Amino acid sequence: MVRKRSGRANARDKSEINQMPWAQLTNRLKPTEVLSQDEVENIHQNSLRLLAEVGMVMHDPKAREILKRAGCDVDTDTLRVRFDPAFIDEQIAKAPSSFTLRSRNPTRDLTFGGNNINFTSVVGPAFCSDLDKGRRRGNTEDVRNYVRLIQSINTIHLIYGTPFEAMDIPAEVRHLEGYYHGIELTDKVWASWLLGRYRADDGIDMACMLFGTDRDGLKENPACIGNINTNSPLILDAEMTQGAMAFAECGQAVIVTPFTLSGAMAPATLSGALVGQNAEALACIALLQTINPGTPCIYGSFTSNADMRTGSPAFGTPEYAMGAFASGQLARRHNLPWRSSNACTANSVDAQAAYESQMSIWSTVMSHCNMIIHGGGWMEGGLTASFEKLIIDAEMLQMMSYMLRPIDTSDEAMGVEAYKEVGPGGHFFGAADTMKRYETAFYNPIVSDWRNYESWEEGGSLTTEQNANRVWKKMLETYEQPEIDPELLKDLRGFVDQRKQEVLSGVRNT
Amino acid sequence: MVRKRSGRANARDKSEINQMPWAQLTNRLKPTEVLSQDEVENIHQNSLRLLAEVGMVMHDPKAREILKRAGCDVDTDTLRVRFDPAFIDEQIAKAPSSFTLRSRNPTRDLTFGGNNINFTSVVGPAFCSDLDKGRRRGNTEDVRNYVRLIQSINTIHLIYGTPFEAMDIPAEVRHLEGYYHGIELTDKVWASWLLGRYRADDGIDMACMLFGTDRDGLKENPACIGNINTNSPLILDAEMTQGAMAFAECGQAVIVTPFTLSGAMAPATLSGALVGQNAEALACIALLQTINPGTPCIYGSFTSNADMRTGSPAFGTPEYAMGAFASGQLARRHNLPWRSSNACTANSVDAQAAYESQMSIWSTVMSHCNMIIHGGGWMEGGLTASFEKLIIDAEMLQMMSYMLRPIDTSDEAMGVEAYKEVGPGGHFFGAADTMKRYETAFYNPIVSDWRNYESWEEGGSLTTEQNANRVWKKMLETYEQPEIDPELLKDLRGFVDQRKQEVLSGVRNT
Repeated sequence: MVRKRSGRANARDKSEINQMPWAQLTNRLKPTEVLSQDEVENIHQNSLRLLAEVGMVMHDPKAREILKRAGCDVDTDTLRVRFDPAFIDEQIAKAPSSFTLRSRNPTRDLTFGGNNINFTSVVGPAFCSDLDKGRRRGNTEDVRNYVRLIQSINTIHLIYGTPFEAMDIPAEVRHLEGYYHGIELTDKVWASWLLGRYRADDGIDMACMLFGTDRDGLKENPACIGNINTNSPLILDAEMTQGAMAFAECGQAVIVTPFTLSGAMAPATLSGALVGQNAEALACIALLQTINPGTPCIYGSFTSNADMRTGSPAFGTPEYAMGAFASGQLARRHNLPWRSSNACTANSVDAQAAYESQMSIWSTVMSHCNMIIHGGGWMEGGLTASFEKLIIDAEMLQMMSYMLRPIDTSDEAMGVEAYKEVGPGGHFFGAADTMKRYETAFYNPIVSDWRNYESWEEGGSLTTEQNANRVWKKMLETYEQPEIDPELLKDLRGFVDQRKQEVLSGVRNT
Repeated sequence: MVRKRSGRANARDKSEINQMPWAQLTNRLKPTEVLSQDEVENIHQNSLRLLAEVGMVMHDPKAREILKRAGCDVDTDTLRVRFDPAFIDEQIAKAPSSFTLRSRNPTRDLTFGGNNINFTSVVGPAFCSDLDKGRRRGNTEDVRNYVRLIQSINTIHLIYGTPFEAMDIPAEVRHLEGYYHGIELTDKVWASWLLGRYRADDGIDMACMLFGTDRDGLKENPACIGNINTNSPLILDAEMTQGAMAFAECGQAVIVTPFTLSGAMAPATLSGALVGQNAEALACIALLQTINPGTPCIYGSFTSNADMRTGSPAFGTPEYAMGAFASGQLARRHNLPWRSSNACTANSVDAQAAYESQMSIWSTVMSHCNMIIHGGGWMEGGLTASFEKLIIDAEMLQMMSYMLRPIDTSDEAMGVEAYKEVGPGGHFFGAADTMKRYETAFYNPIVSDWRNYESWEEGGSLTTEQNANRVWKKMLETYEQPEIDPELLKDLRGFVDQRKQEVLSGVRNT
């Protein structure tokens, strides 16, 4: 039994928010592997067979035309494109194994590939929630506060300007405000929407303005990234295709993420879902490489399983973790950077939310995932962005970041001299070596409460969720908007306003 | 964004408790390593230097005498024993790299070593807690219910008969009732207390009765296991020594766990704590091998760090995880099985409790820990055993067990034929292959609630803790006491009653 001490300071000062400094994260450990090389190859070969024999339905005519010109077998009745295995392998080989995106703060440029890890916040929910106002439809004010938090959290590398939907803005122009939030409120790389060519083009245009460059300049030093999903099984819709093609033409980064939910959109086996995921991701990446060889692409994985009793998707499951390990191996086989997610199924910001997220975080980090989307705030299988969960996820991500640091094994750190000073039965609290290291010796939590039971009870018996509520409010109070040229911001505002008018009156493309 | 479906069955039937069947768990994955081989060796060499230059205070005179006879340098004034590095290496080489403990149900024999994993429940707290009665001092009724739950949870391999203290029983004889609970209420391997020779001897005597054998027979087929802790830094007290020596003489398994809390009982560096842990564990194991070469020993690790602001021990921290990875490497260097814990600091059964436990579980499992003590129920740095946390831990342990299974990569599982049947855009719910696999395709949770938000809300918006409360009550209702010869049980009861009388009247040793 271990007695916790009340010690030096009974109550933790809640006004301080402990964070590790911003840093591009790398994983120095060997990736965990669940498949043999033969099994990886076997999954890949089955994917190639799927693409050759069943093919993929491509709803966009231009995409079909490009693939036809490149020698693929296109069936104009069924819209199916069948791919020769050699074509897939050849195109995939053209994609870079690693690439860098520039940020307006050059210290926040991000590299994707190798053993780099990049975390984003949640993106996409229609709802947001916090302990004060409950679960509700997202609006602009909530979104902007959430973006301020994402900027403030050092362990989140990448911004989605609408981490959840601002339902007070028409859907067609929501992306424009999102891009603007990303630029105005943060100095991190911000991501674009690839739902239709015009949303992609708007992202590119705003990036050109931000960096004072044109499309050629942006192509040389890419700054934009966006994600497309397939409609699993084996469909790529027209809007996603058009957005992705716009990015490929301009050399901006595209993540291709099949939604292979085992038992629903994929067979009720993990390997069956991986075969589908691999086929769909590679077919789309092959298309983008055909359009512009060398387009930075990220192999996306979202493989999980349906709960066969309810039909609901289940995330943060053992299958999800096994799928992440296997996806990392597949991506490395293809020499492609890869993405996954910090996903959970839980409806309440409680133990289940944490252990499901930990299943996602551990498995993706330990299998060298390069981009972990939904890193902070995701709840309910992606339906809600929680303010408290964002803080709790930040803690979990930061713990992983800290854990990946090397262990100091210098002679001094080994402490034989300190042991000699203290002697058997002595206490290291007052040792010279301890006093020297005191402040920075160990991980400092963002939200974890390490007080003993009595102090915790005196402090109101707060749960992690309640503590997180205090942390995000404090973080909002201390948020500092990064500096930006006011003229540039005015120009960007002008662009957004003009484009909103154009889009709402039917002019979608620039 | 992912929409959760309400689907086939809106409400999950809470009367069923899903569990994977009992199995000895193995980890087929490569262990995660955070240190180079040079660094491992360097830590070991510093430990040897510590044992040679500072030495360890041994409070037990017999232990000092044994070590003196074996050539160690014993200082009779300071009680310090200084060890020659060659002596340590020589003795450690005598310990088996793997051993098996028999259970009264032979299908529940357990092997410790290699890539085996064994989980126990929490052990040691003075308090227990549940949602109905709150936090309270443990008593016999609570303890017996907890033991029934541990027996019912398939993923817990090993029993402590008093997972928390039954404060209604005098401390001196509490172990006897604990052993009796282990035998009466469970058919799993049960662990003994090594605090003083008489508690160890009582465990051995009851095991002899249970297996109808004598000490020689038990020595041939060991069944008992117990843990000793050092008083870090560098002290081994007399009671622990005497208990461990009794076990060593009889060839029963001893876990040696230093309590090297970095910044308090060890230097304020992780490597410094590991040097101390390694020195203390090896010195004690060397003693036991000197007494009886081949005694099954387990290298124990409990290295974590103090919260330097409060002095409280912090568990489930990044340092804890790094320490676990490193400890696994050290244990493998010594060819010894090793133990660690599922520890957390949290006071509330909430997100923090789950993410801290996940830090402990993932790091210990991924570094091939052979025995994870405190696997289920531990709260508050070890002060309280929670009924709800036990269920939540069971879920987390079971998820890990499931995750370690191989992925089926047979041609049939790869599902190309299922894809052909379903076609692009189709749904796998009704596919022939899915119907065949439906029932057993995926992980079934014990306590996780995967319903969509609306169904969850209709069901009362229960937290994981509340769901866990329902699960353990249901588990108690459906608990089945394993069969045992009533005559044997009567004899054991007689032994316990007699020994209680003897011990309370001052006769401690058999």
